[in-house]
Amino acid sequence: MIVDVLRQLGASADEASEQASALVEGDLRGRHSHGVQRLPVIVERLRAGLIRPGASHHATWTAEAMLSVDGGFGFGAHVARRVVEMISERAARTGLAAAAIRNASHLGMLAPYVEYLATNGLVALAFTTSEALVHPWGGRVALVGTNPVAIALPAGGEPFVMDMATGAISKGEVIARRLRGQDLPPGAAVDAEGRPTVDPVAADRGAISPFGGSKGFALGLAIELLVAALTETELGQRVRGTLDVTDPVTKGDVLMVFDPVACGVQPFSERLGAYLRELRDSPPAPGSQGVTIPGDRMRAERRRRLREGIPLPEGLWRELVALREGVDREASARA
Amino acid sequence: MIVDVLRQLGASADEASEQASALVEGDLRGRHSHGVQRLPVIVERLRAGLIRPGASHHATWTAEAMLSVDGGFGFGAHVARRVVEMISERAARTGLAAAAIRNASHLGMLAPYVEYLATNGLVALAFTTSEALVHPWGGRVALVGTNPVAIALPAGGEPFVMDMATGAISKGEVIARRLRGQDLPPGAAVDAEGRPTVDPVAADRGAISPFGGSKGFALGLAIELLVAALTETELGQRVRGTLDVTDPVTKGDVLMVFDPVACGVQPFSERLGAYLRELRDSPPAPGSQGVTIPGDRMRAERRRRLREGIPLPEGLWRELVALREGVDREASARA
Repeated sequence: MIVDVLRQLGASADEASEQASALVEGDLRGRHSHGVQRLPVIVERLRAGLIRPGASHHATWTAEAMLSVDGGFGFGAHVARRVVEMISERAARTGLAAAAIRNASHLGMLAPYVEYLATNGLVALAFTTSEALVHPWGGRVALVGTNPVAIALPAGGEPFVMDMATGAISKGEVIARRLRGQDLPPGAAVDAEGRPTVDPVAADRGAISPFGGSKGFALGLAIELLVAALTETELGQRVRGTLDVTDPVTKGDVLMVFDPVACGVQPFSERLGAYLRELRDSPPAPGSQGVTIPGDRMRAERRRRLREGIPLPEGLWRELVALREGVDREASARA
Repeated sequence: MIVDVLRQLGASADEASEQASALVEGDLRGRHSHGVQRLPVIVERLRAGLIRPGASHHATWTAEAMLSVDGGFGFGAHVARRVVEMISERAARTGLAAAAIRNASHLGMLAPYVEYLATNGLVALAFTTSEALVHPWGGRVALVGTNPVAIALPAGGEPFVMDMATGAISKGEVIARRLRGQDLPPGAAVDAEGRPTVDPVAADRGAISPFGGSKGFALGLAIELLVAALTETELGQRVRGTLDVTDPVTKGDVLMVFDPVACGVQPFSERLGAYLRELRDSPPAPGSQGVTIPGDRMRAERRRRLREGIPLPEGLWRELVALREGVDREASARA
């Protein structure tokens, strides 16, 4: 269905299936903020010409280990898939290679990209900027992105995959709790006056807090600067174009990959896997279910949902069905 | 005085002054856990042959952008200074270069290295493993290092420099508060049974908590794996040799540098500086002094202490004086 909608709006078969896969991976991994709930915005952006199907992206090796990518305002997932292959191939020679991507629409969750690289034996890092939803530590105005970082490595049977935003909570989760009338966790957000709040309505008019206080702020800000500098994209409130339906995309993405074989390092996958088992098997804190390794829960969710299906809120489902009918009607009218 | 002590114990003039500078920088920047309080351990490690003055390190470009460094159990600061020059020079051609360092003693704070690189117009990242002092999220046993990350970029007048451990508090701070009979901040540590505690005596027998809950744990763990994999060094409780006086060093360090000119990116320093001013000038949260940018406080401390001197606890001062007298006596006896 997602593929059909995107095809009707001009996406190529590859673009449509890669974009659909990026959205479905979000839902499969339990990260609904990156799931099909983003389809309506993508459709609006396609209609407004802000995402350009069939756009050709330009990837240039500005230096031996550095790929500069202009996405041509095309589908982010489509661009990123190709970039991932290019830097993997290059790292086989240079040991380490990076890509700085601008003018590409939202990539979706970073986890699938770095996981793919780690499954191929590589060490991968990814950084992205996003709309300014987070207040600086000590401040109250949303001036910093939720800027996620993802890191993956081969680690025994399944790779280690961490993928986290540097905000204490996602905007999607704030909205979801507002719709369900649930409180936010303490410390996750402030109201318009900068006072800590657990009320999702107040938080929606205020700002998300950085995770982990001043340290989480430092990390999120470092990502904001690193990505903006290397990708020549925007900073703070001038980062636009993944949540709105009005502005060209001005966020950036940085992907980095180490090829351990090219770097001449001894095989480490089994050794890392054994250490992660040591952590999982270590005594739990009182009242805790025990240690879970980043990526474990996501993988368990993914397996369960592949088996049982993805539960979607009824409202979203109705919206998606209406969206499809609208797109189909337009297509018939054109035919 | 530090230089004299290290010289008496066999360090070359360069080794001694670089090690001394690394320690003094810790104190100047208000990070006493990385300051001269580490000198007694360094002296013991020198006496035990665990730090080897005059050791030659081997640095090999295993791939075009990847430098593999065996520190030969020499002084970490001495090794790192040279490595920083090598990767800077290489990045001028490859755009991006990294070094994986093993068998080098403690580097000291990471901030001075990345700050130096950013002052030279480069974008720098550094990751280090350290002794397992932090419990995994959901667990209670110290199995993960306090693994710091540092990131620096040119940003107007002074570079942006963030340098933070992934533990909620440093071991040095736990000890300092124990000595002064002060409580720890809530959430910073657990006791031996894994219960949150603000008692530094109980925390000393327990474990430090990761900063920022499960996300901080994810970041610290990713650094543990990344560094161990690329530098062929140890994991978890097998990481030794920066706090003890008994074991060879088994931690690793990863340094990465982007050369923006080589990468062909447009100058960004002024633009980042303007954004940081925007953050500093933004409205403060109620009760806050306003937004401080990572590195601001450290720089202010450094300037003040260069002017006014570094306050040291009397006990530490007496220990250092005794240390020097002991080393001098040994030298006279040998002469």
